[in-house]
Amino acid sequence: MERINKTWILRRRPEGEVSDGDLELVEGPVRALEEGEVCLRTLYLSLDPTNRIWMSDREQYMPPVAIGDPMRGGGIAVVEESRFDGLEPGDIVNTGLGQWSLYQVKPGKEVNKLPVLPGVPLTAYMGPIGMTGMTAYCGLMYIGQPKPGETVVVSAAAGAVGSMVGQIAKIQGCRVVGIAGSDEKCEWLTKTAGFDAAINYKKEDVGAALDKHCPDGIDINFENVGGEIMDEVILRLNDFARMPLCGLISSYNATEPVPGPYNFSMLLMRHVTLKGFIVTDFMEHFAEGRQAMASWLLEGKLKFATDVVEGLENAPTSLERLFTGKNLGKLVVKVSDAP
Amino acid sequence: MERINKTWILRRRPEGEVSDGDLELVEGPVRALEEGEVCLRTLYLSLDPTNRIWMSDREQYMPPVAIGDPMRGGGIAVVEESRFDGLEPGDIVNTGLGQWSLYQVKPGKEVNKLPVLPGVPLTAYMGPIGMTGMTAYCGLMYIGQPKPGETVVVSAAAGAVGSMVGQIAKIQGCRVVGIAGSDEKCEWLTKTAGFDAAINYKKEDVGAALDKHCPDGIDINFENVGGEIMDEVILRLNDFARMPLCGLISSYNATEPVPGPYNFSMLLMRHVTLKGFIVTDFMEHFAEGRQAMASWLLEGKLKFATDVVEGLENAPTSLERLFTGKNLGKLVVKVSDAP
Repeated sequence: MERINKTWILRRRPEGEVSDGDLELVEGPVRALEEGEVCLRTLYLSLDPTNRIWMSDREQYMPPVAIGDPMRGGGIAVVEESRFDGLEPGDIVNTGLGQWSLYQVKPGKEVNKLPVLPGVPLTAYMGPIGMTGMTAYCGLMYIGQPKPGETVVVSAAAGAVGSMVGQIAKIQGCRVVGIAGSDEKCEWLTKTAGFDAAINYKKEDVGAALDKHCPDGIDINFENVGGEIMDEVILRLNDFARMPLCGLISSYNATEPVPGPYNFSMLLMRHVTLKGFIVTDFMEHFAEGRQAMASWLLEGKLKFATDVVEGLENAPTSLERLFTGKNLGKLVVKVSDAP
Repeated sequence: MERINKTWILRRRPEGEVSDGDLELVEGPVRALEEGEVCLRTLYLSLDPTNRIWMSDREQYMPPVAIGDPMRGGGIAVVEESRFDGLEPGDIVNTGLGQWSLYQVKPGKEVNKLPVLPGVPLTAYMGPIGMTGMTAYCGLMYIGQPKPGETVVVSAAAGAVGSMVGQIAKIQGCRVVGIAGSDEKCEWLTKTAGFDAAINYKKEDVGAALDKHCPDGIDINFENVGGEIMDEVILRLNDFARMPLCGLISSYNATEPVPGPYNFSMLLMRHVTLKGFIVTDFMEHFAEGRQAMASWLLEGKLKFATDVVEGLENAPTSLERLFTGKNLGKLVVKVSDAP
């Protein structure tokens, strides 16, 4: 059976937001497997801020996607064909550093077979027990070092990472305040996810709201956003506060230099520890983190939301949802049906 | 014998640089001692950036000096009279949080008798084996965590803290590049203090000079200054770099909000650990630090310079030397003669 692939190719670097013509969806046959390779059919693509970063030729964790190359991205896939010992057709895998395509041929050793946990949907492997869950768990536990009674503020709180950070912090006995961009999200955070308070930054004075909801100051700022909101949070940090620096999404579309926080000197005056990280810095803790998250998930202590967009053809335009604050929970693109 | 005191009183908060009328030198009798108190005669005042911070009603480590109160400052003094067990006339002490005055009456338990080390001048107790030395030692060793072969950049490198940081880093086997504000200082850094390179930021393109002198990037940025120079350093940080944030002197005289580093996102992308601190965060390491610094000093491995201004009356105007880059080494005011 010949498989016809669809692949998003990066044609030029976006200026600001991704726009028509930056990427092109091309069709073509899938090549035959060599020894040690597998052919995967994508079930879900995980859309993350890092996808946007990879499109730009700026300072970042790894080289950007080259012009003319398939767009890079992770997700969940099913093995269609295998010439690799240890993976069989029908196995569900994490694609690792995969592509925005329907099919992809990869060395079998670069993909990880997912454990099957009864009662856990596939999308959880991109959420609580996937990379975003590990980002939240490791960043909060190992940089944030939460202690019972402390106050934790998290920005992009209704996002895939932020929503997990807040719930893990609650489990650790902290007071948790989330910052998000709609009343619907804020209601989800307080009613469903159990946050103590949520601030709608599009409607409220963030500084005044932080004063109200953080009467004892802020001990941990789990930072996903940057910009003016981060400045308001930094201004209220307590002595010896910790600041896991996970993302600065407000600047990823920027076309001009972005000033750092005007309250930068508070990092000095308040003896703050700030640590920039990505999830792979904490690989040694993944087994422990997955186990903790899976347990909490099965015990009903972790709620997670998934924002599912249908169809590979909608991947580039859907990415924008992360930057305009449209997504609630983990943003994924459903590419094809699970077996 | 009645002692006539001279004390600098803070009359108003400076706008920008300290100017005439912000402080006033007043004379008056020294009061009689109560049980447990000592009367100290100041030998040297230590002038530090924090003196300027204490004059302003801004976010800081401790409350600012109140208008009408004596100006706060540390230094070295001799005990003139004692009603405290354990201190006797003639003892040389560290005044702790003392005053800008000729005499001061303090509880004996708030001052520390200095050990007498043969061959070590009194000014060293405000330098290498004093608070500035401990700031350099603890910030570099416990936040910077230098490893042999790494590259360390230090700003305000010819200052009391910076000059020690660079020399300790050399002892640890690092490549050390200092940034300072005159050819004289740069020459002192490379010829006397043994730095590998020094950059005169008033004459050189700091970015280009860093590229030249740090071919393998920067592993530790010991930050004393802030502003544009910090931005150039941050841009060149390596993965997992450390950034002891010790001072931001470029902003202490600011009268308008100062933007944080434009390259703030590098702290994320390069997995940087930044930690704001003051020396008292590391009190548990002072005994070890003093011992190490005293040994290196007596072995001739640490050079230190002292910028001595004569006369208490010159304290306010001398403070400016720290902000205009005039001082080489530890800035002190000699107030009276040692016994």
